Amino acid sequence: MIFLAKITIGLKEGMLDPEATAIRHALGNLGFATDELRTKKLYLVRFDAADAHDAEEKARGMCERLLANPVIHHYEIEVHR
Amino acid sequence: MIFLAKITIGLKEGMLDPEATAIRHALGNLGFATDELRTKKLYLVRFDAADAHDAEEKARGMCERLLANPVIHHYEIEVHR
Repeated sequence: MIFLAKITIGLKEGMLDPEATAIRHALGNLGFATDELRTKKLYLVRFDAADAHDAEEKARGMCERLLANPVIHHYEIEVHR
Repeated sequence: MIFLAKITIGLKEGMLDPEATAIRHALGNLGFATDELRTKKLYLVRFDAADAHDAEEKARGMCERLLANPVIHHYEIEVHR
């Protein structure tokens, strides 16, 4: 069965996000005042799996072995058919 | 009123995504075969606006003036209180 995993990777609470700081600054210069800005990365991955549980396990494996750095990142996985 | 805009920026259909190609290749080497992989960027922005319509207009302005390159990117905006 083909599944689509939506994997969102962000920095853990308390980690510095210099990209977000730079963007907030640039937005402010353009007249867009913001209270907070966070950046995340999204991966949409289509792959074959036996069932939804297997698909979630595979997506978790992709995060832990490649996509996320467990020291600084947290990740969320949503699996759909 | 404070709003949270969830801005998702991705490459337009047909644009090459070399990061996605590299990740698919690396996942394959780790034993994770994939049919398709897309990368997107997510910005979570908290800011003040008069109402939901104003918040959406502001988020669109942020995309068009800074976050997205209209030649290669499309963007989606979701605004929540």
